[in-house]
Amino acid sequence: MNNNPLELLMNPRSIATVGAGNNPMKMGTIQALSIVMDGYKGNFYPVHPNDDQIFGYKAYRSPLELPEAPDLVMFVLPAPLVIPILEDFGKIGTRRAIIITAGFRETGEEGKRLEEQLKETASRYGIRFLGPNCMGIINTEISLNVTVLPLEAKPGRLGMASQSGTYITQTLPYLEKRGIRFSKAASVGNEADIGLIDVMEYLGDDEQTGAIALYIEGLKDANRFLEVAGRITPRKPVVAQYVGGSDAGARAGSSHTGALAGPDYLYEGLFKQAGVIRVDTIEELYNQGWALANQPPLRGRRIAVLTNSGGPGTAISHTCSEGGLDVPRFSETLQGEIKKVIPDYGSASNPVDLTFHMDTEAIGATIPRILAESGEVDGLIVHGLMSSGFIGAIYPHVNRLLGFESKEDFLEHFSPDPTEQAAMSKGLGMPMVISSFFGREDDYTRTYQDCGIPVFDAPEKAALAMLALYRYNKIREGGYRDNPVLPLCNESAAATISNALNGGSTVLDEYQSKQILAAYGIPVVREILAESPGQAVKAAAQIGYPVVLKGCSARFAHKTGKGLIYLNLENEEAVRQAYDAIIDAAGMKIPVLVAEMVRGGREMMAGVIEHPGFGPCVMFGLGGIFAEVLKDRVFRLAPLTEADALAMLEDIRAGKMLGSFRGLPAVERSALAGILKELGNLALLHPEIAEIDLNPIIISEAKPVVVDALVVLKQQGLSGSQDK
Amino acid sequence: MNNNPLELLMNPRSIATVGAGNNPMKMGTIQALSIVMDGYKGNFYPVHPNDDQIFGYKAYRSPLELPEAPDLVMFVLPAPLVIPILEDFGKIGTRRAIIITAGFRETGEEGKRLEEQLKETASRYGIRFLGPNCMGIINTEISLNVTVLPLEAKPGRLGMASQSGTYITQTLPYLEKRGIRFSKAASVGNEADIGLIDVMEYLGDDEQTGAIALYIEGLKDANRFLEVAGRITPRKPVVAQYVGGSDAGARAGSSHTGALAGPDYLYEGLFKQAGVIRVDTIEELYNQGWALANQPPLRGRRIAVLTNSGGPGTAISHTCSEGGLDVPRFSETLQGEIKKVIPDYGSASNPVDLTFHMDTEAIGATIPRILAESGEVDGLIVHGLMSSGFIGAIYPHVNRLLGFESKEDFLEHFSPDPTEQAAMSKGLGMPMVISSFFGREDDYTRTYQDCGIPVFDAPEKAALAMLALYRYNKIREGGYRDNPVLPLCNESAAATISNALNGGSTVLDEYQSKQILAAYGIPVVREILAESPGQAVKAAAQIGYPVVLKGCSARFAHKTGKGLIYLNLENEEAVRQAYDAIIDAAGMKIPVLVAEMVRGGREMMAGVIEHPGFGPCVMFGLGGIFAEVLKDRVFRLAPLTEADALAMLEDIRAGKMLGSFRGLPAVERSALAGILKELGNLALLHPEIAEIDLNPIIISEAKPVVVDALVVLKQQGLSGSQDK
Repeated sequence: MNNNPLELLMNPRSIATVGAGNNPMKMGTIQALSIVMDGYKGNFYPVHPNDDQIFGYKAYRSPLELPEAPDLVMFVLPAPLVIPILEDFGKIGTRRAIIITAGFRETGEEGKRLEEQLKETASRYGIRFLGPNCMGIINTEISLNVTVLPLEAKPGRLGMASQSGTYITQTLPYLEKRGIRFSKAASVGNEADIGLIDVMEYLGDDEQTGAIALYIEGLKDANRFLEVAGRITPRKPVVAQYVGGSDAGARAGSSHTGALAGPDYLYEGLFKQAGVIRVDTIEELYNQGWALANQPPLRGRRIAVLTNSGGPGTAISHTCSEGGLDVPRFSETLQGEIKKVIPDYGSASNPVDLTFHMDTEAIGATIPRILAESGEVDGLIVHGLMSSGFIGAIYPHVNRLLGFESKEDFLEHFSPDPTEQAAMSKGLGMPMVISSFFGREDDYTRTYQDCGIPVFDAPEKAALAMLALYRYNKIREGGYRDNPVLPLCNESAAATISNALNGGSTVLDEYQSKQILAAYGIPVVREILAESPGQAVKAAAQIGYPVVLKGCSARFAHKTGKGLIYLNLENEEAVRQAYDAIIDAAGMKIPVLVAEMVRGGREMMAGVIEHPGFGPCVMFGLGGIFAEVLKDRVFRLAPLTEADALAMLEDIRAGKMLGSFRGLPAVERSALAGILKELGNLALLHPEIAEIDLNPIIISEAKPVVVDALVVLKQQGLSGSQDK
Repeated sequence: MNNNPLELLMNPRSIATVGAGNNPMKMGTIQALSIVMDGYKGNFYPVHPNDDQIFGYKAYRSPLELPEAPDLVMFVLPAPLVIPILEDFGKIGTRRAIIITAGFRETGEEGKRLEEQLKETASRYGIRFLGPNCMGIINTEISLNVTVLPLEAKPGRLGMASQSGTYITQTLPYLEKRGIRFSKAASVGNEADIGLIDVMEYLGDDEQTGAIALYIEGLKDANRFLEVAGRITPRKPVVAQYVGGSDAGARAGSSHTGALAGPDYLYEGLFKQAGVIRVDTIEELYNQGWALANQPPLRGRRIAVLTNSGGPGTAISHTCSEGGLDVPRFSETLQGEIKKVIPDYGSASNPVDLTFHMDTEAIGATIPRILAESGEVDGLIVHGLMSSGFIGAIYPHVNRLLGFESKEDFLEHFSPDPTEQAAMSKGLGMPMVISSFFGREDDYTRTYQDCGIPVFDAPEKAALAMLALYRYNKIREGGYRDNPVLPLCNESAAATISNALNGGSTVLDEYQSKQILAAYGIPVVREILAESPGQAVKAAAQIGYPVVLKGCSARFAHKTGKGLIYLNLENEEAVRQAYDAIIDAAGMKIPVLVAEMVRGGREMMAGVIEHPGFGPCVMFGLGGIFAEVLKDRVFRLAPLTEADALAMLEDIRAGKMLGSFRGLPAVERSALAGILKELGNLALLHPEIAEIDLNPIIISEAKPVVVDALVVLKQQGLSGSQDK
């Protein structure tokens, strides 16, 4: 189907293990047992130095003795022993490996060297491998499980790529209890070769996978993530948890898999840019991933809430509203239809509240059907579908009056079979999620879960799952990301930069900085460089009063509070005085910029920073006096598409002020977006740039104008910037 | 112990039921069964019109035939039948009732009338009652359960008051599975008599209760809530969920119990003022309430994270950091001690990551003890304490090699008894919470939960519980709320208000508005009312140039954009011109305010609004051009204490700008807080006031000055304001 290395790794016709023996106290043994006991149909070849048989399977002393080259080999033996045996597998023609073994890069310098050797050996034989320091893979389509814990023999639709092995292994019993099932899953460990992004790409093309969940501690190549995720998300939902954005999280991740974490705001921007839905907890990752993997798209905002209990109905309605969904009051006609089938004390307005009763026909069939046919709703959330869980709980009490022989007899008698209702619900043609305080001991919970209708253990979780569908619908409607095309490199900008570097400077002065911006079409304030009072006066006349005078030197990159700026100068006299004052304040002869005095009620800021693994990222935010206090800023990776840049304008908290605002006209969005786009482009075209800072960008009437700018270059000989 | 009506209602020596019969399909029957089967030791008297026996107990035709007046009677029969029988119970001397029956206020006008009759009848006999439309009570101290679902016979420490019956009934099996146990709980239904606040007050004094959880759809009396909660929270944690703050939530709550909801921001302010910890979901309410009810105070910010799995350790660390806790890198000494007992590949820095292994001695005993003794941490979060859950899951695989007769034999052999470790952990002298993907099928989860150490099913939930302890510690350290004392009513302010009302006006002009503020010591800008250009010039000279001129009339309450304001007037000529321009713009002769031109880089706003159930509330927020865009505002109920007012300054997002800011000095906080306090006072002292709006309050150097003000009065004959 494609060239992804996971294709063969996930679907091997034969598997060898190295290090698994007959000691049931060893993790390696248990992992090999999962292969042979969970339903895998291919050949299994244990390689072991001493044993002749490994739980009944003929064992081989060396790969060289194997009857065939297995498609896949899994290593569970200590780190120093891996490489020579991998080499033997390479010789016989095996081309995929999973290296469970820890003790590589994550442990320090010695481990790093070992990992380099591992990569070199694999690469020599064309072996693509997962790990080291990982927990393996799961492919429910062929009942393949190489992890420690047993796998329920039921294929699901949630694909997962995880930088923690725990989340595809130790959580298997947890997931089974919650009716959540993987399609395929991989723990990527140190990602020495195959990485999280490869797994995501594979799952993106995998037909069994309906949605992809990612657990991320740090990405090595955010640009590739963006490119691959950007191709997947318009057609398949991707949900991600990122936990590396705090000092403690970064330190923990680094000692875990040596992951390269980065500031939370960069990941926040990356996920938005890539159409990835971000969640904050592992439970949300599973829950929302599961809902997205199984439910049809939510094609509008109108949610019906159907409940047999007021509290959960209220909590669902509230959580939906807070997240942007609508829980509309139903039309009188629809309410009339509903009233026919609910008790007098119930409410038909939405939430539909049946009040507590045990008749599951209305809540499980009649009302969902009425709602689906009404044309008034786009999705349905139900609380209170339950039978055997609830009546099983009251059995010890009520049986005092009934005298059944056993709980089973009792349930047999009183608990209806929900199979038909679940099948009907599945066919409603709109998303449906359920909240129930009863787990899989309840026939309803189990039956609905097993037919792909998510049942969560709290009302707010059902609402959050519906909100994930809502978020995804907007992503889907956004369509595919354009492929940004870089403009040609501007020669004069390049010359300015190389002149500065040749002169030993890593900071461009304000005038040079703006020249570079202007070369890429970024609107900067009209200004002229003056070397004498006379030149300043002439420049002012040319520009037109009032003007601004600013000392212009890379030595004074930050001018505020140093007596180097004079605003609103109305005449020649004022210009001369300001000129002298600036030279005085500088304590030396420096050029002075004479600039147009730009006014406007709105100040924004923008810039470029670099971060390892991300390359240049464009920042946009609120400027002016509140910039530091509110830190209302968003980021995207360069290069930006037009849509990326426009989305940044929506994304800041103060976004509303870009519309019509206090008598000012709406900002020309395309002009402002253009600045952001070009910032990204020029950072990519001139990799010598470490950092750009445009602050403020004043919105003059409707037009953005860059009023101050600073370009910082990388120190020569260094490949990355000093930013953190 | 006290006069709270819950005292007897929760501890009755005898209980009668009315409406419960022998039909096990009726909820009333099942509730009565809970009383007799869950361990309650008092007398039980069923009252029933036909049956002679109710599940073996002698039944009585009427209350009048009972051998004694029961302490408590529970009604489960239809609404119209309740009142006459309640009357009979009143006659025989019963003084407490629980009215489960629905069909009162929540159903409309007819139901409202019925509820009034109910109250009247109860009041005539001094009967205090819970409900109607509720699910009853639980008191685990005396094994009393009147709800539908059976109660686990284990007393806990979490008290609950709920405006949804579901959350103390249908969730009982859910809570049992999670090891969470109530002390006492009550569903308050329509709160026709005893309400949520009464239950909270009772739980506040109840020794068995370690923390209080509240589920709230709307409060009738926010002031009483504040007063009662304010007395509880310095000594006992209170956690609350509020779901009435959205349109859909309010509508749902109203049809549920007729609850009176209000805007979310008012509840947010109320909870902060009262020291109540707010949560967003029912799961957080239970989880964090449970942790707070059982764990000792967290006395600092330093958290140790101990894990056998990198992912959960990273997620815990990240969640702690995001919430303000510190996960500090341990000292070299401490790391050295830890390294002795963890595998080579592990990490000792914090998180302590043992990497996956099954030795529970280190993670369950040795390391917790080392950490507790180190003096480097204040609280401990552990992931990976597990035995029977995990090995029970792998049993089907490993038993292929071991050949145990049964899973029980296998667990007996391999699963250690965690009782001693749990007891040791309980005695560490610092809070401890645990995350595990294995539930109560695991010996560790069960044993730790049963000794009061919370075990949650996800790492982030454990971190959130620790964050709740952190939030509570700050509340505890804040101490008791002062009792605000109102100043004397100012006669001249009262006269201004009554003059306006007598003149048929409900809006005071700017000058009058500021006179009222000034009467209560609120600093307003220096200004003089002028009736002619000459007076204006004289006033300007008196105040000192530059000045501001503003048209001053209640007819032009909102002046912006109407040509009624002229700023920064430098001389006599400018004042005369401005005066004429204002009269022109007004189109009539109106007085003109001549005011000092106040400058300052910071503009704030404040005000008073009223909301049913809340009375006057004081607002504080960011003023100036961003006010509308950022809506950075917080609220508190009047009257405010000094501490309440100071907390509001911290509470806005832009709070930092009140400190030293861009070369400006820190704001005089006590002066700004004083404005807020006096606003609340004057709204209470002059109940004719509907609304006050101070915008802007300019911070001039360090001092706040009210530059514009508007006071709106209530329309006469109306008791509340028109605000929503």
